[in-house]
Amino acid sequence: MNQSRQHFSYNDFIVGDSMSLGSKNMTAEEVIAFASEFDPQPFHLSEEAGKATVLGGLAASGWHTCAMLMRMMADTFIRNSDSQGSPGLEYVKWLKPILAGDTISATTTILEKRVSRSHPTLGIIRMNHKIINQSGVLVCEAQGSIFMRVDAQEA
Amino acid sequence: MNQSRQHFSYNDFIVGDSMSLGSKNMTAEEVIAFASEFDPQPFHLSEEAGKATVLGGLAASGWHTCAMLMRMMADTFIRNSDSQGSPGLEYVKWLKPILAGDTISATTTILEKRVSRSHPTLGIIRMNHKIINQSGVLVCEAQGSIFMRVDAQEA
Repeated sequence: MNQSRQHFSYNDFIVGDSMSLGSKNMTAEEVIAFASEFDPQPFHLSEEAGKATVLGGLAASGWHTCAMLMRMMADTFIRNSDSQGSPGLEYVKWLKPILAGDTISATTTILEKRVSRSHPTLGIIRMNHKIINQSGVLVCEAQGSIFMRVDAQEA
Repeated sequence: MNQSRQHFSYNDFIVGDSMSLGSKNMTAEEVIAFASEFDPQPFHLSEEAGKATVLGGLAASGWHTCAMLMRMMADTFIRNSDSQGSPGLEYVKWLKPILAGDTISATTTILEKRVSRSHPTLGIIRMNHKIINQSGVLVCEAQGSIFMRVDAQEA
């Protein structure tokens, strides 16, 4: 998949292709800011509380990880595309804690694509997303679909 | 399930019980603020762009809906509990758009619970979450598990 293109349409997604979404350092400030608003559990708010749990330190909310994955997807291909949203996710696995200071890298692989039978202008692209930390350990995996507008000449 | 209690431990979760998580108005300001940071797609950023899509207006990011569900869970029972995080979600379904100004209400139902065989101090509680809008339409459904510390006397 040509990641340098300016705009992504349905036909640009090739089944089997993988895209790097780049890397992101998760700072303590961001971890605490997200958690304060959406997931105010002690281990997402302080190093001390995190160390007292199986997480082992100040850990990012799993929802923060997902939101960051979304931002990385947006910056890589969704923002400049014919995206029409998403019907949801088949699963999300928070496999290992992401601790403050960790750098995560994400990769999206295109699993399948088809045009909706009931809405012939709507393409459905099924994707797998993997997130590793700076040690190469898989910390999160998710799978789901996005909707992409299909023009008559593409269908 | 007694929702007025001050602290929730593993034994307080009863399979089959449902809990109201209350209601939340999704303001345009919040929708745009979340999307600007994590999901900057046009239909999450402006009414006009949203009207040009199948979403029909300024629509909350699905991740914002999930983050808000998390906050409602935190306020209702997780913040004052023996929560040890979550292994993930079996699925998330974004069934209908949540538009700016909509009021969402959420309900969590306890599906199953068990103590981990490999970690006998870790309880796993499987839950279903349903979110409806002010018209009673199911707009989002999610299912997943949380970890809850199990004390020796509870196991």
